[in-house]
Amino acid sequence: MERLVVVSTISVLVCVFGVVCGLSGVDGSEIRYSTGRGIVEGKLNVHLVPHSHDDVGWLKTIDQYYVGSNNSIQGACVRNVLDSLVTALRRDSNRKFVFAEQAFFQRWWTEQNVETKQEVRKLVDSGQLEFINGGWCMHDEATCHYVDMIDQTTLGHRLIKQQFNKIPRAGWQIDPFGHSAVQAYLLGAELGFDSLHFARIDYQDRAKRKVDKSLEVIWRGSKTFGSDSQIFTNAFPVHYSPPDGFHFEVNDDSLPVQDNPLLFDYNVEQRVHDFVEAALTQANVTRTNHIMWTMGDDFQYQYSESWFKQMDKLIHYVNKDGRVNALYSTPSIYTDAKNAANISWPLKTDDYFPYADREDAYWTGFFTSRPAFKGYIRMLSGYYVAARQLEYLAGWRSSGPNTFSLGDALGIVQHHDAVTGTAKQHTTNDYAKRLAIGASEAEMVVNLALPCLTSLKSGKQCASPSMKFHQCPLLNISYCPPTEEEIPNGMSLVVVVYNPLGWRRLDIVRIPVTHAGLVVQDSKGNRIDSQYVSVDNRTLNLRSFYAKAYLGVSPKQVPKYWLVFQVSVPPLGQSTYFISKGSTKGKNGSESLSVLSAHQNETIEVGPGDFKMSFSSATGQLKRVSNYKAGVEIPVQQSYMWYGSSGGDADPQASGAYIFRPNGSPPVPISRKVPLKIVRGPIVDEVYQEFNSWIYQVIRLYKDKEHAEVEYTVGPIPTDDGVGKEVITRITANMVTQKTFYTDSNGRDFIKRVRDYREDWPLSVNQPVAGNYYPINLGIFMSDKKSELSVLVDRAVGGASIEDGELELMLHRRMIYDDSRGVGEALDESICVDDTCEGLAVRGTYYLSVNKLGAGGRWRRMIGQQVYSPLLLAFTHERVENWRASYATDATFMDPNYSLPPNIALITLQDLDDGTVLLRLAHLYEAGEDAEYSAIAKVELKKMFGDRSIKGVNETSLSTNQLKSEMKKMKWKVEGESREQPTPLKGGPVDASSLIVELGPMEIRTFLLKF
Amino acid sequence: MERLVVVSTISVLVCVFGVVCGLSGVDGSEIRYSTGRGIVEGKLNVHLVPHSHDDVGWLKTIDQYYVGSNNSIQGACVRNVLDSLVTALRRDSNRKFVFAEQAFFQRWWTEQNVETKQEVRKLVDSGQLEFINGGWCMHDEATCHYVDMIDQTTLGHRLIKQQFNKIPRAGWQIDPFGHSAVQAYLLGAELGFDSLHFARIDYQDRAKRKVDKSLEVIWRGSKTFGSDSQIFTNAFPVHYSPPDGFHFEVNDDSLPVQDNPLLFDYNVEQRVHDFVEAALTQANVTRTNHIMWTMGDDFQYQYSESWFKQMDKLIHYVNKDGRVNALYSTPSIYTDAKNAANISWPLKTDDYFPYADREDAYWTGFFTSRPAFKGYIRMLSGYYVAARQLEYLAGWRSSGPNTFSLGDALGIVQHHDAVTGTAKQHTTNDYAKRLAIGASEAEMVVNLALPCLTSLKSGKQCASPSMKFHQCPLLNISYCPPTEEEIPNGMSLVVVVYNPLGWRRLDIVRIPVTHAGLVVQDSKGNRIDSQYVSVDNRTLNLRSFYAKAYLGVSPKQVPKYWLVFQVSVPPLGQSTYFISKGSTKGKNGSESLSVLSAHQNETIEVGPGDFKMSFSSATGQLKRVSNYKAGVEIPVQQSYMWYGSSGGDADPQASGAYIFRPNGSPPVPISRKVPLKIVRGPIVDEVYQEFNSWIYQVIRLYKDKEHAEVEYTVGPIPTDDGVGKEVITRITANMVTQKTFYTDSNGRDFIKRVRDYREDWPLSVNQPVAGNYYPINLGIFMSDKKSELSVLVDRAVGGASIEDGELELMLHRRMIYDDSRGVGEALDESICVDDTCEGLAVRGTYYLSVNKLGAGGRWRRMIGQQVYSPLLLAFTHERVENWRASYATDATFMDPNYSLPPNIALITLQDLDDGTVLLRLAHLYEAGEDAEYSAIAKVELKKMFGDRSIKGVNETSLSTNQLKSEMKKMKWKVEGESREQPTPLKGGPVDASSLIVELGPMEIRTFLLKF
Repeated sequence: MERLVVVSTISVLVCVFGVVCGLSGVDGSEIRYSTGRGIVEGKLNVHLVPHSHDDVGWLKTIDQYYVGSNNSIQGACVRNVLDSLVTALRRDSNRKFVFAEQAFFQRWWTEQNVETKQEVRKLVDSGQLEFINGGWCMHDEATCHYVDMIDQTTLGHRLIKQQFNKIPRAGWQIDPFGHSAVQAYLLGAELGFDSLHFARIDYQDRAKRKVDKSLEVIWRGSKTFGSDSQIFTNAFPVHYSPPDGFHFEVNDDSLPVQDNPLLFDYNVEQRVHDFVEAALTQANVTRTNHIMWTMGDDFQYQYSESWFKQMDKLIHYVNKDGRVNALYSTPSIYTDAKNAANISWPLKTDDYFPYADREDAYWTGFFTSRPAFKGYIRMLSGYYVAARQLEYLAGWRSSGPNTFSLGDALGIVQHHDAVTGTAKQHTTNDYAKRLAIGASEAEMVVNLALPCLTSLKSGKQCASPSMKFHQCPLLNISYCPPTEEEIPNGMSLVVVVYNPLGWRRLDIVRIPVTHAGLVVQDSKGNRIDSQYVSVDNRTLNLRSFYAKAYLGVSPKQVPKYWLVFQVSVPPLGQSTYFISKGSTKGKNGSESLSVLSAHQNETIEVGPGDFKMSFSSATGQLKRVSNYKAGVEIPVQQSYMWYGSSGGDADPQASGAYIFRPNGSPPVPISRKVPLKIVRGPIVDEVYQEFNSWIYQVIRLYKDKEHAEVEYTVGPIPTDDGVGKEVITRITANMVTQKTFYTDSNGRDFIKRVRDYREDWPLSVNQPVAGNYYPINLGIFMSDKKSELSVLVDRAVGGASIEDGELELMLHRRMIYDDSRGVGEALDESICVDDTCEGLAVRGTYYLSVNKLGAGGRWRRMIGQQVYSPLLLAFTHERVENWRASYATDATFMDPNYSLPPNIALITLQDLDDGTVLLRLAHLYEAGEDAEYSAIAKVELKKMFGDRSIKGVNETSLSTNQLKSEMKKMKWKVEGESREQPTPLKGGPVDASSLIVELGPMEIRTFLLKF
Repeated sequence: MERLVVVSTISVLVCVFGVVCGLSGVDGSEIRYSTGRGIVEGKLNVHLVPHSHDDVGWLKTIDQYYVGSNNSIQGACVRNVLDSLVTALRRDSNRKFVFAEQAFFQRWWTEQNVETKQEVRKLVDSGQLEFINGGWCMHDEATCHYVDMIDQTTLGHRLIKQQFNKIPRAGWQIDPFGHSAVQAYLLGAELGFDSLHFARIDYQDRAKRKVDKSLEVIWRGSKTFGSDSQIFTNAFPVHYSPPDGFHFEVNDDSLPVQDNPLLFDYNVEQRVHDFVEAALTQANVTRTNHIMWTMGDDFQYQYSESWFKQMDKLIHYVNKDGRVNALYSTPSIYTDAKNAANISWPLKTDDYFPYADREDAYWTGFFTSRPAFKGYIRMLSGYYVAARQLEYLAGWRSSGPNTFSLGDALGIVQHHDAVTGTAKQHTTNDYAKRLAIGASEAEMVVNLALPCLTSLKSGKQCASPSMKFHQCPLLNISYCPPTEEEIPNGMSLVVVVYNPLGWRRLDIVRIPVTHAGLVVQDSKGNRIDSQYVSVDNRTLNLRSFYAKAYLGVSPKQVPKYWLVFQVSVPPLGQSTYFISKGSTKGKNGSESLSVLSAHQNETIEVGPGDFKMSFSSATGQLKRVSNYKAGVEIPVQQSYMWYGSSGGDADPQASGAYIFRPNGSPPVPISRKVPLKIVRGPIVDEVYQEFNSWIYQVIRLYKDKEHAEVEYTVGPIPTDDGVGKEVITRITANMVTQKTFYTDSNGRDFIKRVRDYREDWPLSVNQPVAGNYYPINLGIFMSDKKSELSVLVDRAVGGASIEDGELELMLHRRMIYDDSRGVGEALDESICVDDTCEGLAVRGTYYLSVNKLGAGGRWRRMIGQQVYSPLLLAFTHERVENWRASYATDATFMDPNYSLPPNIALITLQDLDDGTVLLRLAHLYEAGEDAEYSAIAKVELKKMFGDRSIKGVNETSLSTNQLKSEMKKMKWKVEGESREQPTPLKGGPVDASSLIVELGPMEIRTFLLKF
């Protein structure tokens, strides 16, 4: 009995009766797979879309992902993907592949030899390799600013156009955690995309859409544009991976098609059956007889042939079977087929936020996660806009420093695991390093450009400027060596103030100085008012610790004061201010030391101008906000609280980098009685409130501003009690808001939000707090019948209105547990000096205003631009007279009498490497947003560019990769809609001689100019 | 402070001072790697040998490994390896790869199209792709029979020769668990290999060899041939993987060479440093300035480019660095370089058994693991020899059944995780299934050949034989339907007995019958003696359970008797016996019922002939063995015992499929008093001993045989006491053996073993039992000054002599724990019928003899051949007179007066598919083994092939892939050896007219004949 261990009788019989059981020893022959039949009408067509989802950093850094290092964290090498892809695509001309992330593709492209490049060009030309999305990364849609989204997309699209003369047709946002209106209409339709594809929508939404067959919709993301900017949108029924059992990465355990009868386990019938079953399941939730299978996953196709070999077989045998038709496809081919079906589609408006992948799992934590990093990105986003302006104005310097590395870094950090705060710490460090390197180079661009632009000397000084400028990126913690240093005798501290906005601007400059008694002169030599405010201890402590942490050196001096003065800067121009030691003669201005205010009355009103705030002297808390100019007064409280993070108990869903899940207790108020310190002065009143040892706030009320500037310092958040904390500030106004509030979409459109409500499905509320959070990039506001209360932010945060009359912003988060969505780390940021580490503190600012109902828009749009594009300050020391002899002290690069209309922003002005200049103008108002400004506005290009002579103007798509005039739109029918949709107000073509650009509400127009 | 998360000052500075920090946006250019410099004299040359170690079944079945299914067990797909390899090798003509396992390569080859085949031929021609080893698998060296090793190697070598006209030059046994002398001299030197490479030698041995720089040796594995069959042997210093940090499979976490200055983490200097360090470390333990890096591992190169890309870079940058020289290489190139160095090498004799990879981890369990499977393989090995003889004799049938699938299956199961018993259970089942399929087809070959060969009818009946034969592979459990069936009236049971040996043979046939009263006639019609022995209950129970388990059907009849009779069969020929119901007239023979013997005396002597055994009637135990003919009598005890397996306690090293590690207690004797049943008869006396409920033994002593045949039935081994058990039989003789005993090497040479001693290093004994076990395929013996006691086995087992005068064999093993060497399963075999499972029982036989000192060799060699090649029995029913009219009843295919010399065995006679016939003759004696037979012997081919006319004779290498006359041997110098080594006794060239083949001791000669 030892002879046969286990041999089934059947297999022996199979052999006996003539089927070849073993290897024959005779040459078999290759099976040629028939993969080129394409779409077959009348059958269910299964579009296999081969793709690799390559995160531009997440568990590993972008370069680790590219070269395949650090594989112990995650096995992933994008270089392998692209290397192996070329070979695999060449093997069968029917095979197709779509690739999205240009940050990776361009890394690879630069390494290829001429032959490979030719091969790849052939593959792209033939449509075998199709670029989709085509930006630098697959940007996030909740926490990105629309200017960043445009920039990073343009970066990729331009290279695709240059290298391949191709225009991506499909939006491929398969992984971002919810989807924005701006993505759909601006980074979709306005980009020229025909379709948008993604995987992540709310689980309740998806369930209903599967029943209704409404996963695929016509999405009109813009209220202003309506059908004019609609896009065909495909939300996947499961995820962006293939149906179960059809993953074919090397080492995947899906059953390969075994069609060699000489080997055991022949399974063609079984696998065809599996395929047909999976196809029919999906067809059951999909309209038309076209379904898409996303044949890929994260960092797949490292050996592309392993996928294609199986897909070849599946297509061959499934089509031989004949029940359904399988084909290699792309989102474009798929969309064409959907369009050709000519049926009506459901309509979708607003957006797909917030996203929950299951009960109690709302991905609303990432709206705030890593607020310091988010703030750094937003600061550099604005800086990048300004630096490109100066780079253009000074003339492109191909050999010197340029803004490319900052654009590259900013492109990378828009990735949906970067700015979102959902990457591992070491990856986030890598992002920050890239930003710092880019910023450092951009700073050199600015330092070189400024003197060059205003030089009075003949000839260009730009080649080797003698003037050495300094800038102070750590000004927010009062670290600025050029302003702190002793001003040498006879010299002045020269402050060049650049205004990247298209309007003249009155604004405030604050710089740290070591002593008072300084005289501030404006560009004309007039002494102007200034005010000294003592630097508070919290700031000095931060300065000491963080300057050491970031720079590795301890600051020498300790500044005593903030020197505050008001500046006036022309549009797209600069003014120069001179700060000197005491004796200067000008008599007009005065210098004031701020005065500590005593709390005599029960209520203390603060504010040197028309916008005031009242505080209780008993509790130190805010009581009222008054905009006397607007005639609005509202009782308002403001507090700090924290939600305890879920995690650590039996329920496995913790709060983490992605997910906000409070532990069920009401939020804990930080303090009911706050020590209050008020200082007053002619320019600014400041209110210092120390809520506790790790929450510090300064409210600044300026004489000429209609809002309060609230600077918060939060952290280190203690977690030694074992509870993660998600810190909010809550503003409680006496307003009847009827569950309604408004949040922006990527800093652009405002979208109405209604608490505990979704337009698209009857919401089952399981997370009454987390499920009502929305992403905020520009601001949040609420209104009642008379007034509006608005808050603007300086970075992406999460926000909500949990009760009527309330607005809250989540400012910082620190946790103990991971939320099991892949990052594998708790969101627990710390900062170290030598061996001393502590939780990361965050300092940021928000802006609060109250207005008459209908008037808030104007404040939000105007101040929003100022927040996004702060004044750019550069410092040096020089004798005033020398300076005046060499440089203009006040200059605009536009016609001196011109400024942009108040409803138009210059969002891009950039010298391109092909001799053209990229200009983007954006109308800032939505239809109906403002009685006056929501109208056609005109920009006179001739005046805007002053003495530069425009030789040519081409209007293009948003990403510049095609002429506007050549863009085509697909037509789609919407269910229940018979008549033509109204045409939105938009500017007409630009007349070549007058060169006047008209812009309708919300319109963004993109031009390539030649001078 | 929120702005920079963590940015080191250094990196910012690096950027500022001009090193490119980010992606430049400008096309870089491809780096061309210089990889073709080859060997550089005067430098340390690091030979990178790219390889993939592809187990022919282990955790998965061979076909699962090939197609990449069942990846949840192990990610592995050999098809990917070969697919991706072609592309990778074409990319740079300096890249090289060595491939070993032809069972995989041939699976792949048959699937390729003409273009790919041409590409591959180019790669092979150019030496980029080199076949090494080149057998069907990388056979085990402990548990394989040398005939199987030759056969499986020939299978691969012939295809390589046919398809590529190439001859493998290197033995590549990198993974087998210890290395045999026969491997070195026969499957190495005699095959024409220049070198032999492997990884696994005893850890103590390796440690010493590293110190002595003696990992590389000249190995003379044959005492008989000495330097004539030596081979350069390279034992790796660590394992067959690359040095740590140089594994480059997709997803491996070795640091890739990052040489793109546009990306972060440029590390060329670091990686060059790592490389040089690792090279120097290895150079420290290696002679000459050539070292080999085995650049691969198990199932690596699934995406070959991932390895080659890194190796390209390493070669380029390391050579640029210049401290050492790196090159793509192969074992052949490496060996040439070693040879060219012309230095002296250490000498190695005997073998590398047993193998321990660390203290307490002796890989001596696998010598016995899965004894049923090992037995099945050995049975089919002998059957394959016979079936090929018959296939040849009947003429090759290209369309009908053939022996290929059995050869294929036997080739596969020689793999070092197959016959070793170290594969997972499901894989072992797959092996058994393949064997069963192959055996089934070979059975058809035999059934068709037998009548065809002896047909008296004119013309060939072979095309459609009318006679339907049956064979009985389950005869050992008395299951044989054709002999059990009622013989129809007038008909006889025709028993055709084929003798695959080259000598006339007297032997015993035993068949189960349902009743007595049968008459047995020989081929001439004479009635001959027969004896009935009752079938014992243990056998009947096994028959019932296992027949159901294997065949899915329950036997109908129950046989009552074994019918035993002696047959005489001509060499390479057949005799026919007729068994009829009672009335037949012949009077010469008698039929005897066996007689139950009473135990009257204290000692009972048993045995109808000159070889007798004495038992104690009190204890039932053996007391004495007497070979009266030889004049030898030795007091001998025999017992069964078990070692408790280590495992389950704190010490992590358990006994398992690979490792034998007793738990430290002395072995437990099964029974001190055994029920004894003795039956006697004219042909055989049988002694039945039931040691316990799961150990049963029958000793058979035949009238004309000089040995005892011991049939053991062991199992199901109980483990419900939580203890794994390793069952041995121990033979204790009153002999002074001085620690010395002898075991065979792969069934061929006998090697002297000395307990607790190794020739090559001072052994530190930590496992006094497991460390003294050796593999046994043919037999084991010991001797004192007067006598020899020998045991022959019917399959691979482990054996030892733990005390002087003792021999023990491990017969079966069943365990509870895995031994952590990868298989991940405890060795715990079971067998099931429906839902009833029990531990697998094993039935086997060993043979025991005692001889005068110096006379045992003759018995061992002669009986060894009989054990390996038992008589082949085929059954049918026919009228005797009809049969006689149609078929010759006694026939040899040699000249009727010829037989092979007694010291020569025919080990292969096989019709090849190219019209030639493969003949292998083996001298059976070592130099000095037998006074008479250890001498030149002659085979007369003309007589051997009877009336077949030989048209051509070419002598070839062992695997037939080159002419013997064209084989070249490398010359090597051995340390301390100045003069020429003696030339061994070998046969001269074959005279083309006389066609007489001479063979010296141990010589195997291989010929391709044409008729």
